[in-house]
Amino acid sequence: MNDVRIAGVGLTPFGRQPERTGRDLFAEAALAAREEAGVARDAYEALHYGNFMGSLAERQGHQGPLMAEAAGLDCPATRHESACASAGVAVRQAVHAIRAGEHDVVLAGGMERMTNLPTTEVTESLAIAADELFEVRAGMTFPGAYALMARAYFEEYGGSREDLAHVAVKNHANAVPNEYAQYRREITVAEAMESQPVATPLHLFDACPITDGASAVVLVSDDYAEEHGLDAPVAVTGSGQGGDNLALQDRDALARTPAADAAAEAAYADAGVAPDDVDVAEVHDCFTIAEVMALESLGLFEEGEAISAAREGETTRDGDLPVNLSGGLKAKGHPVGATGGAQIVEMTKLLRGDHANSDALSDPRVGVTHNAGGTVASAVVHVLEVVE
Amino acid sequence: MNDVRIAGVGLTPFGRQPERTGRDLFAEAALAAREEAGVARDAYEALHYGNFMGSLAERQGHQGPLMAEAAGLDCPATRHESACASAGVAVRQAVHAIRAGEHDVVLAGGMERMTNLPTTEVTESLAIAADELFEVRAGMTFPGAYALMARAYFEEYGGSREDLAHVAVKNHANAVPNEYAQYRREITVAEAMESQPVATPLHLFDACPITDGASAVVLVSDDYAEEHGLDAPVAVTGSGQGGDNLALQDRDALARTPAADAAAEAAYADAGVAPDDVDVAEVHDCFTIAEVMALESLGLFEEGEAISAAREGETTRDGDLPVNLSGGLKAKGHPVGATGGAQIVEMTKLLRGDHANSDALSDPRVGVTHNAGGTVASAVVHVLEVVE
Repeated sequence: MNDVRIAGVGLTPFGRQPERTGRDLFAEAALAAREEAGVARDAYEALHYGNFMGSLAERQGHQGPLMAEAAGLDCPATRHESACASAGVAVRQAVHAIRAGEHDVVLAGGMERMTNLPTTEVTESLAIAADELFEVRAGMTFPGAYALMARAYFEEYGGSREDLAHVAVKNHANAVPNEYAQYRREITVAEAMESQPVATPLHLFDACPITDGASAVVLVSDDYAEEHGLDAPVAVTGSGQGGDNLALQDRDALARTPAADAAAEAAYADAGVAPDDVDVAEVHDCFTIAEVMALESLGLFEEGEAISAAREGETTRDGDLPVNLSGGLKAKGHPVGATGGAQIVEMTKLLRGDHANSDALSDPRVGVTHNAGGTVASAVVHVLEVVE
Repeated sequence: MNDVRIAGVGLTPFGRQPERTGRDLFAEAALAAREEAGVARDAYEALHYGNFMGSLAERQGHQGPLMAEAAGLDCPATRHESACASAGVAVRQAVHAIRAGEHDVVLAGGMERMTNLPTTEVTESLAIAADELFEVRAGMTFPGAYALMARAYFEEYGGSREDLAHVAVKNHANAVPNEYAQYRREITVAEAMESQPVATPLHLFDACPITDGASAVVLVSDDYAEEHGLDAPVAVTGSGQGGDNLALQDRDALARTPAADAAAEAAYADAGVAPDDVDVAEVHDCFTIAEVMALESLGLFEEGEAISAAREGETTRDGDLPVNLSGGLKAKGHPVGATGGAQIVEMTKLLRGDHANSDALSDPRVGVTHNAGGTVASAVVHVLEVVE
């Protein structure tokens, strides 16, 4: 099976940009990726695009063709939606299309516009990623759901609010040099601990912010990259997806994320690598506890052991395995339909050595991205490798 | 490239079922398809699922995992959305995943729940498939958009309301024996002509109804079908997709659907067949004029000539090329996110010879399905063939 090369990547700044339309946001990311790739406009054969809540935020469905136009492309375009994993699944469809021999050049990415809505409406809109009949009607929102998962984790494996605060502190520190990040300022453990409670045990600084933004990646076949002499040293060598029951009540355990276990297992097998090979990771830390569970699902830490990783410095920029050098969803921001693509963008730059935090890494070869939807009812994992 | 076999198909009845949830509808179609396929539950590796307006109709996003659960499956699941072409693109992602060597057994399909909303809200919800900034704000709805396309067609090529009425009459006649169809009654040309005007030149009987329903298809690799001795005589041998500007105002011409031209060209090339090889077609007749434009995009009629096809009996059940033997969207009904999958279901039965209208065909070998989104800003064409 051929690897799929990454020929160009692009992002908007992440943050509050309520005056910008979705098409404006995606155009910026897409044109940046296209410019970096330098592939002729008419070579693009498809757009695979992720968006979660555009039907509510902008009353705009059918965004595929709209975003192809915004990207300056004349090609088939499809929107994919798996809640906060929407761009992850979009990248995955692009990988399939190239591996199927259907296409050689595909644009993938995503966009979310959120801050044009009042915050309560954002929370209600995000809640459509949960089970409407059995969770939302009972009053469940995502901070509450992740609080349940955090409580279950603490009960099962131990851990404390302070452990989680170290995750937030780490990711804020990583965001400082990243010009695309929403919160480029350091925070302290004390600040995190003292921030407003949201849903016990989670406080405000355990949660990612509400963000507008877009991401885009130009994916090409190995053959195309070689024939056209493209500078595309990083490849997607593994892709995996997992699923779980949508409602938490239907799960066997709340402290584990088996959808991510399955996605990771599939992605590693696809790439022919093992967790030990991974040099750097970008994971879906919509809440601090989510980063902990992600690292265990990815096999980067044993069950019950990732909780202390940030506190002990194992996942900080100076640690053995830097995690979320971008700043993560926590500090970089989380425009939900763009996030899975943004992780690929950040990881590509980290592996190429041209990321604002590249000095934290020494000759990285293998990176992994972990993108989750809802309470990890969907999970997509990609393995990226330096191939030349 | 391997063909992708169709091992089982399933539908709900199409019609008004406002008391049924989306998960209930999809479960019925999925379980019917699974039963027909007879594939072990744990062999299913993915669900690719189409839905258009569930975020508005049921406040339910992230339907992939929910529908996998409804289908009794424990596998990754993704929702795809291209307006009324949502299930068509879902089937296409499934085809890619199998051809990429990623999966051997995939469930594909779609669902739409519509009649639980008041009709005006349905019209407003459907309008999110158009360009919110440049069409919807100006008052555009889909009956109006297709009326513009019909007027452009009449101006460019001639044709009359009576020609369109014959399309409606034909499709109603086809629906009578189809137990899944919403309107199983014949209509006359006079009835169609005298029905209430909706948007000149289109009258009520030029439009498809509002429908609840679901569709499902079990797709398997050639190898899997052979190894497991499955009875799967029909294969998807060609898949193509096309795109266009979302807003009509940005198109060069309103009487053509170039996205469908491109989708058809790609699907024929993929399958290695030509329009002349096609024995039977299911096309996206959301309005009668849409069937006319579809037949020309598929190359089954020359430019400007499909308008008279139904009137002259060329596309009726006794004609050389029966079109929409299911009853089409017009009479079978159009649960938008299910339609592209339902076309595959109907075509599979027609090619297998076990459709309620199979007596209209003599040894059919090649069928084509045409599924469109919005004003054909998205189009997906599949070629199905009898392969054993």
